[in-house]
Amino acid sequence: MSQVLADTLPQAPVAVLSGPSFAADIAVDRPAGVTLACADPVLGARLEQAIGSARFRVYLSDDVIGAQLGGVLKNVLAIACGIAAGKKLGNSMRAMLVARGLAETVDLGLAIGARLETFLGLSGIGDIDLSCNSPQSRNMSLGIALGEGRSLADVLGERITVQEGVHSASAVAALADRLGVEMPIAQRIDRILNHGADPDREFESLMALPFGVERAVVPWLRRGTNLA
Amino acid sequence: MSQVLADTLPQAPVAVLSGPSFAADIAVDRPAGVTLACADPVLGARLEQAIGSARFRVYLSDDVIGAQLGGVLKNVLAIACGIAAGKKLGNSMRAMLVARGLAETVDLGLAIGARLETFLGLSGIGDIDLSCNSPQSRNMSLGIALGEGRSLADVLGERITVQEGVHSASAVAALADRLGVEMPIAQRIDRILNHGADPDREFESLMALPFGVERAVVPWLRRGTNLA
Repeated sequence: MSQVLADTLPQAPVAVLSGPSFAADIAVDRPAGVTLACADPVLGARLEQAIGSARFRVYLSDDVIGAQLGGVLKNVLAIACGIAAGKKLGNSMRAMLVARGLAETVDLGLAIGARLETFLGLSGIGDIDLSCNSPQSRNMSLGIALGEGRSLADVLGERITVQEGVHSASAVAALADRLGVEMPIAQRIDRILNHGADPDREFESLMALPFGVERAVVPWLRRGTNLA
Repeated sequence: MSQVLADTLPQAPVAVLSGPSFAADIAVDRPAGVTLACADPVLGARLEQAIGSARFRVYLSDDVIGAQLGGVLKNVLAIACGIAAGKKLGNSMRAMLVARGLAETVDLGLAIGARLETFLGLSGIGDIDLSCNSPQSRNMSLGIALGEGRSLADVLGERITVQEGVHSASAVAALADRLGVEMPIAQRIDRILNHGADPDREFESLMALPFGVERAVVPWLRRGTNLA
């Protein structure tokens, strides 16, 4: 979205607010913490002052790209966790999807110029943790229905709310393909949601992948390639 | 534990297996993934071959120190998340505790020679995510009881199982004090569990902390100080 803004409103400064913050919590003044990313530290500090409070904690960052990625991937990973839950694969499996999903989010992030530490923060693991543990949320409940064997058309047909993850999976998979980043979970969720693949078969092939070394960041990713 | 082993069995090679893996899941062959950390890559690969399977995925690491820390802090953070749940502070607050708890775990880890990326893995955020989302687990349920206003003595008196987090909080707080690492969540949980502090007051003071920049890793930590 920051790139869309830069294209359409080139003179406007851009700031990104993202993090684990259910509207139902914020509305009744329950505590929450979010990331506010802005390339201009003076503007960032002013926004932090204007928005932040003891109940709504606003943590500053200058990683505008990285702060946007957690909010996209969380929906895709929540669908993956939902499928696992619908298939009754257990919470250990769900936690594995969170950790390995975070790892592939980091790989994509580094490829488009984000910084590793952003993903350790509120807009990264904070938001992913919340979405992947919210069975009642739109995206995870969609995954649960798919995992229980219902068809995508059936589930989407009876809903009026948006499942961002369906569109995000497509955009993420296209970006990963273009940049040569392996995202075993996100790419499978895209195949299930947008290309008619069978959830059972995709999950079996996910589990059949070799495991090897835990953090296999591709060396050229470490140098930080940019999207442009 | 690796240091205890090195002291008591100096000739024995050490490997650490840690990650989100409920015994109840493993027992019925549900999928799980864990970190296997070993300084010797040949031994590590042999252990991976011996233990790993398509259902029990074993990811190799050589960060023996880092792989042990998630399993310690998860219990402390699960108690913190339990207190928040018992006080009905909402899931946004719980996710904030997970993200900020991970950040202070990383700070402690870097101070004792662990690597940042380990905490993005199964033994790090994977295990923390599982424990902090398991209200029925020993540590989180202890926190829930405390958050609901029951006394620690009451809760511990009626249990025969161990709440590792009570002892871990004490060890973590002592280590953080010695190394000059700020751990706002873990140090408060230690005060609540081991020094009679009031959960309400500790949570209010946690929320009153300034927020500022998201990843405020102390510069000397970046250089990687060792415990010894």
